[in-house]
Parts: sequence; structure tokens; C-alpha cells
Amino acid sequence: MNRYAVTVEYDGSAFSGWQFQENAHTAQAELEKAIRHRFREKRRVGGASRTDAGVHALGQVAVFDLAHSIPATHLASALNSALPPTIRVRKVRAVSAGWDPRQAAREKTYSYLVHDHPIYSPLLIGRAWQVNWKLDQASMKKAARYLIGRHDFTSFRGSGCEAAHARRHLKRIEITRSRGILRLRFTADAFLYHMARNLAGTLVEVGRGKIKPAQMKKILAARDRSQAGPTAPACGLYLEVIRF
Amino acid sequence: MNRYAVTVEYDGSAFSGWQFQENAHTAQAELEKAIRHRFREKRRVGGASRTDAGVHALGQVAVFDLAHSIPATHLASALNSALPPTIRVRKVRAVSAGWDPRQAAREKTYSYLVHDHPIYSPLLIGRAWQVNWKLDQASMKKAARYLIGRHDFTSFRGSGCEAAHARRHLKRIEITRSRGILRLRFTADAFLYHMARNLAGTLVEVGRGKIKPAQMKKILAARDRSQAGPTAPACGLYLEVIRF
Repeated sequence: MNRYAVTVEYDGSAFSGWQFQENAHTAQAELEKAIRHRFREKRRVGGASRTDAGVHALGQVAVFDLAHSIPATHLASALNSALPPTIRVRKVRAVSAGWDPRQAAREKTYSYLVHDHPIYSPLLIGRAWQVNWKLDQASMKKAARYLIGRHDFTSFRGSGCEAAHARRHLKRIEITRSRGILRLRFTADAFLYHMARNLAGTLVEVGRGKIKPAQMKKILAARDRSQAGPTAPACGLYLEVIRF
Repeated sequence: MNRYAVTVEYDGSAFSGWQFQENAHTAQAELEKAIRHRFREKRRVGGASRTDAGVHALGQVAVFDLAHSIPATHLASALNSALPPTIRVRKVRAVSAGWDPRQAAREKTYSYLVHDHPIYSPLLIGRAWQVNWKLDQASMKKAARYLIGRHDFTSFRGSGCEAAHARRHLKRIEITRSRGILRLRFTADAFLYHMARNLAGTLVEVGRGKIKPAQMKKILAARDRSQAGPTAPACGLYLEVIRF
């Protein structure tokens, strides 16, 4: 049996998330269908991250086994020819039996896009969170400094999270602005359920002046989800890259 | 009568272009419908640029008269509440009677986006021209230098162009790359029909090595459309800004 790891890009607005669900259009199900269609093999595809409905992926990584042995570049085009245009295999590599992207992931980066303008942009529908308030980048950066490091992120953990504990190492938060769009880029060893969206939602509250940067320390220490800001909508979130 | 100039953004993939056509969904028709709906006035809206089907606008400028006198900010929200989400009025200003954006335009900037990668990006469908070839930015920049200046652009003029002559002043071409996307930015006093797309199509031929940069001189001098490269697809083009 041959095991392959694929790097996958998809438009989150086209899918009910990554993971297979009965009677829903998911990225995982599309990949499994493409494998069945091209190789007549019924295989389970395992993703490194279970992205929610609406969340985009530039660098989701997934793994599956094949009885067929196929050169990596051929495998990419074979799958792409069977996939809908909203999802593409961008890279393929052969990996050893038992290699699991969930366990092997050393670091993940998510980007969150916010368009802060009183009039929303038609070209950013489904691609960014469009808010009415002008956000203060400087205070968001100040707040971000409190979040960086090894912390218990219970205050940013979505309900239904199945992780054993909430300690994570948030290595970097980059906040940049380009063409009217604010990009919040989070890099951590791993993320809790909804953590990136909860961090984004809280930093937006800081940007609009509802939370002071120094309050971050208290919010973290509280280990209480209700102390932090709201969950930012899925459409602004991009799973950018997973490092192994 | 009060005359208003509006700056309009729209997603080109949602429209059969700017200009009114019988039985087609156009940006102009949507604005006229919104004015009729909100103010019970049947008005003609005149745009500065007739963008083709699929071409996006960040800064189209259009003008219309109203018997109603309305503060600029109110007018924007009144129209936006009646417009579909694919088009937005981003700015309004009152202008003098007879002010015409086609005549008043001093300079226009178009951006053209190209994603040059063997595997296309689902997130760029309808937002960029996706080509299979890796483009050489340096030779495209060299070619661009021959195009800048006051020239007869007959070789880049689309058939059906109604302009009296083909002399235009192409002031700047900026070619930059960011996140795998090549952006060609053209600024001129005015553009001929399809000129931005023909310039982009020709520069892409240079980028893939089919046309040498120095050939640009001959292509311009030929004043013959068949000498230049193909018309790049509409989906990569953005009417960015019009200066008056």
C-alpha cells in the first residue's frame, strides 16, 4: 500500500467544511469521490485540520492510501481532473506508512482578513469579515503581544472542543494592512476549536475600542470563554500553511 | 436639478458589463433601478468607462441628475439599500450641472491580475487570469518600458473601438508580484477599447518567452492589431481609479 500526502486549496464558501457529513458537500468527501472515480479504490482521506463551513484553505494537508503506485505529479493532475473547480490538489508527496498529518504537524498558520469600512466591498463577499468600524491597528498590535507565548487558551476555546487541554504555544501574531484590508496572521504549535476565530473576534473588539489592550492579560487568566470577544465569522479565515 | 457623481465598486462576474443592454444584468441598469426605486425618478446614469462583461470595478465613476436634493452620505446609503450586494456606491459628491465624467477624466488606472502556476487557485476563479506558464517578470518590465509614453496604440486597439484616433499617453506600467499573483498596473490619460486587456495579453506573451521585449517597438510601430498578443480575459481586469 502507498501513502500520499496532498496539499489542498479550496474555496470555503463552496463547502460545508472539511469533514465528511451525511448529505453535505465537504472537501474531504470530494477528495474521496475523486479517488474512487479515478482509481476505483474506496479510501478514507484524513485531514490535518477540520476547517468549518465557510473557512478557506490555501494549505490544508491530507493523507490517504492507494494500492496504485503513481508518480506524485500524475496523481495531482489525475485527482484535479475529477475534482470540482472549487478545490484543487496543489502538491503531492509520497509519505511513509502510518504518517499522520494531525500528529506530524509541528506548526500551523491561519490568516484572518478584516475589511473595516462603512461600505462593504462586493469583491470581498465571502472572502473577508466586513465590519463597519475603523479598526486601530496599533492597539490591536499591543493587545496581540499579551497573547503571544505559551498560555492556557481556555478563554479562546470554542465549546465542543475535544482537545485534552487548552495549553498552546502561540508563536507569532502579525497584523498588517494592505489595500484597505487588515490581515491577522496567527502561528501556533496547534489551535483549539474556533481559537483563530475567537482571537480575531477579540482583537477586532480591541481595534474598535471596546476592549483595552492590557485587558488581554486578565482575559487569558480568567480561563473563561465569556471574557473574550465574539467568534469572528468563518468567511474571513484562511488555513494558510501547516509545517511538519 | 441636482447632479451627483458616484464612485462605484462591483464584482464583474455578476454583470454583463457596465452599460445598459436589453434583457441583460448590467451595473448601469442596477443603478438606474435603484434610483427609480428610492426616489421615484427615472434617470439615466452615465459612466466614465464602459467596462466589459466580467471586468471588475473598484472605482468606476458615474453621474446622474436628481430633482431631490440629498446629502451625499444619505444618498450613498439610500442607493446601497436598493442595490444587489454585488455592487456598492462607495462615494458620492455633488457636481455642477453638465459635469461629465467621460470628459472630465484626466487619467485612469487599470490593474490586471495574472496567476501563473501549473495548478490554478480555486480562490482566484473569476478574479485573475490563471495561466499555466511561469512568467518572467524581468522581461515583462523591459517590454513595458517600450510601451510607456505617447504613442499610436492601434496595435492594442480592439475592433469596434469608436475613438477618433489611437494616440494615447501611457504614463506608467507597474509590474509587481505578491503571493504568487502578478499585478500589471496601467495608468494612461485614456484607454482605447480593449487596450488594457491587449497590453496585458501581449505582456504575458513576453513573460512566457513568445515575444522578446525589444519587439514591442516594432509592434507599436506596425499599427496593426495582429502584430500584438491576444486579448487577455476580462476576469483579470479591474478598473481601479479615475482621476479628474
